[in-house]
Amino acid sequence: MFKKETYIARREQLRKDVGHGLIIIPGNHEAPCNYKDNTYWFRQDSTFLYFFGLQREDLVGVLDCETGKDYIFANDYDIDDIIWTGPLPSVKELAASVGVENTGTPKALHDMIAAMKSPVNGKPMPHYLPPYRADIRADLSELLGVSYASVNRHASMDLILACVKQRMVKSAEEIEEIERAIATAYNMHVGAMKLAMPGRYEYELAGFMEGEAWKGNGPVSFPIIMTVHGETLHNHGHNNRLEVGRMLVMDAGCETPMNYCSDITRSVPVGGRFDDRQKTIYEIVLSAQLEAARVTRPGITYKEVHQAASRKLAEGYRSIGILKGSVDDIVASGAHSLLMPHGLGHMMGLDVHDMENYGQINVGYDDETRPSEQFGLGSLRCGRRLQPGFVITDEPGCYFIPALIDKWQAEGTCKDFIDFDELNKWRDFGGIRIEDDVLVTDTGARILGKPIPKTVKEIEETMAS
Amino acid sequence: MFKKETYIARREQLRKDVGHGLIIIPGNHEAPCNYKDNTYWFRQDSTFLYFFGLQREDLVGVLDCETGKDYIFANDYDIDDIIWTGPLPSVKELAASVGVENTGTPKALHDMIAAMKSPVNGKPMPHYLPPYRADIRADLSELLGVSYASVNRHASMDLILACVKQRMVKSAEEIEEIERAIATAYNMHVGAMKLAMPGRYEYELAGFMEGEAWKGNGPVSFPIIMTVHGETLHNHGHNNRLEVGRMLVMDAGCETPMNYCSDITRSVPVGGRFDDRQKTIYEIVLSAQLEAARVTRPGITYKEVHQAASRKLAEGYRSIGILKGSVDDIVASGAHSLLMPHGLGHMMGLDVHDMENYGQINVGYDDETRPSEQFGLGSLRCGRRLQPGFVITDEPGCYFIPALIDKWQAEGTCKDFIDFDELNKWRDFGGIRIEDDVLVTDTGARILGKPIPKTVKEIEETMAS
Repeated sequence: MFKKETYIARREQLRKDVGHGLIIIPGNHEAPCNYKDNTYWFRQDSTFLYFFGLQREDLVGVLDCETGKDYIFANDYDIDDIIWTGPLPSVKELAASVGVENTGTPKALHDMIAAMKSPVNGKPMPHYLPPYRADIRADLSELLGVSYASVNRHASMDLILACVKQRMVKSAEEIEEIERAIATAYNMHVGAMKLAMPGRYEYELAGFMEGEAWKGNGPVSFPIIMTVHGETLHNHGHNNRLEVGRMLVMDAGCETPMNYCSDITRSVPVGGRFDDRQKTIYEIVLSAQLEAARVTRPGITYKEVHQAASRKLAEGYRSIGILKGSVDDIVASGAHSLLMPHGLGHMMGLDVHDMENYGQINVGYDDETRPSEQFGLGSLRCGRRLQPGFVITDEPGCYFIPALIDKWQAEGTCKDFIDFDELNKWRDFGGIRIEDDVLVTDTGARILGKPIPKTVKEIEETMAS
Repeated sequence: MFKKETYIARREQLRKDVGHGLIIIPGNHEAPCNYKDNTYWFRQDSTFLYFFGLQREDLVGVLDCETGKDYIFANDYDIDDIIWTGPLPSVKELAASVGVENTGTPKALHDMIAAMKSPVNGKPMPHYLPPYRADIRADLSELLGVSYASVNRHASMDLILACVKQRMVKSAEEIEEIERAIATAYNMHVGAMKLAMPGRYEYELAGFMEGEAWKGNGPVSFPIIMTVHGETLHNHGHNNRLEVGRMLVMDAGCETPMNYCSDITRSVPVGGRFDDRQKTIYEIVLSAQLEAARVTRPGITYKEVHQAASRKLAEGYRSIGILKGSVDDIVASGAHSLLMPHGLGHMMGLDVHDMENYGQINVGYDDETRPSEQFGLGSLRCGRRLQPGFVITDEPGCYFIPALIDKWQAEGTCKDFIDFDELNKWRDFGGIRIEDDVLVTDTGARILGKPIPKTVKEIEETMAS
């Protein structure tokens, strides 16, 4: 936890930015796995963490913009619990530790909301964020007297935008936490590289990474991607056997005990030596990844960074005869997106896709920048103008997706810029992605954390050691 | 997955046992962690696994007891998904793989239920189990037209009892799966023992175990307990530093890819050598654990097995002067339960606490056996008469819980059988628990899996190696 003044200041700013009414920020409950009391690990809601910092389940935070008061509502554990759990702080003590003076039971919260419904102030609906868990949605339905189906429709855009405004700019202490998460990701990735030998199974390496994450005292920040079929972007199975000739895509990160995230991807040749074809594609992707970090700076939009990386990819694919025409025309046509249908990156912080629960467009875009309709670029999660303190992932990739190649070829999509005969020679290649986490500084950008082996030489040396 | 005939036979038996109406068995959805698309690992519902065996999310199984037909309802992935996910089987193909001939969309399920609501058959409510996840509860609320608050009240006791009847007796192929889970638990426990040296933190060992579980290609079967304060029974934090003099309680298991479970506890002295006090308590607990396995056989109730273990504990505590009076009187009074407030064990199978979502009393008890009201014995999760094929954990423990000791002393509870002066000499000891998974055979019982070091000598040798 940060010191309580941090949370007090954040809440004060939030009340100022939202300006009116009551703000409800529910913390998470335990999440049942296969029965009520067998839960997944407890993950506090990120918004609750940002403004209240507390890791206990079943807490509800409330900010009153009219009175300037903050509240935490929850039941204390009872004396019988304490025999099993050891001594635990009371709700009042927890609240005080983050500078909240007012506490109450869930019943008191119900009474407060019921009183609000009076037409006196004319603003009966408190501000809340669209819930992403069904239990919180059911709670809000019951608390606010709106149907379960309509809960998300009544979420507050004022609150969303005020939260984005604060959370998108990371403080120095937040950056420190993120670098701590990357330090653990270093152990995860370097260790897994050394295990990437033929005969092993993907799940053995994924298991190693899970263990390293927990040894850092936090969970993984998202389900590990560990696959010799990197071209299958949504691939969370880990059942393949590693064979020489395949590139292994390892996309994995972790969270610190405070739930700040890391998100790193490395792609390595099974067995430890790149062959010529692997090296060719790898160098193209790496050139794009480095270019993105090079041009990232305050004032540029992330859409422009994405396009700078796209130019490098287009140049590379042109040099090996997969694409044709001028680089400008290729990028304008979107032909290169056949090989990278996703965006360059996304914000990262207390969520690996930071604030994704607020709605991607509200986080990655603003009045000035809007998402593209073009294939590939349209998947860019963040297009907005960069500010110092933003943390963004930089993760270009190259994927030979047979079903997509066949679709484009059949439809003639971008056919003036694609040599399908040449392209089809690579259709069994698989995929490569390279990802780091980048801080926008006052003057440019900095790749965060201790450098994780990334060049062909560094990876081959690491895997041989 | 087992062969499809297994699932066909299980469903046929279920239809026969329930006898009438429609049975709805919803599979699980993905479980959101900190936003909708960042999920915990996918855990299929155990009842769905038992009768339908399929691991995909968003499936709903239906059994019609009137027509003998089985159904699976779900949407197919669409063609755009397939570009990202690679080729995936259709719902029809999935259903066929477990012998289900009829499939439909969620809309078709809604139409089927809507048609059922007609008063013609006079039985408008289908059978379903009480949901333990809020999303499934909301689904059932909407599907059946009952309020969210009342969904669990309408759950079917006929269905619960029919499911218990089948699932409590494990087949040979289920036992094989459970032993596979124990093989991975062996790696988890033996590896962690060797790491249990002063200066390390609990989370490092818990992380090691998480990794070993995933290297076995499955999740942990419950949140790992790894604590030098074993006396705090509900202790899932892992922040303590290991120091010589503390007993480390490691209660952890895993699931196979088919989600059969293991659940093993070992307690080891930090540093690898038991001191005299530790050895004394350890031997008492071990004698109880071995006694329970020794007396377990078909025809005995598990309550009787619990009491046989209790006698060994009482004998031991009497021998060191903590308890006084005759062993029979001590056990009858429940005085020994001050040091073991929980039951001896629980059923295990597709859930680590098997079928706990059905309600503990419906699983662990029956018309013949009812839970005790006595402290300790009343916490016994399973009291019923044992049958060949039951898998039960055998997990006695000894915990010096200062808050509970003080409470009993202040209240004078069982004061004729407890020497509080002697007892208080142990109040900082911590806790010990020893647990194996036991199969009830035709003639007795068998501790499942490759033996994991358990005697003082075996543990000391393992930790020294």
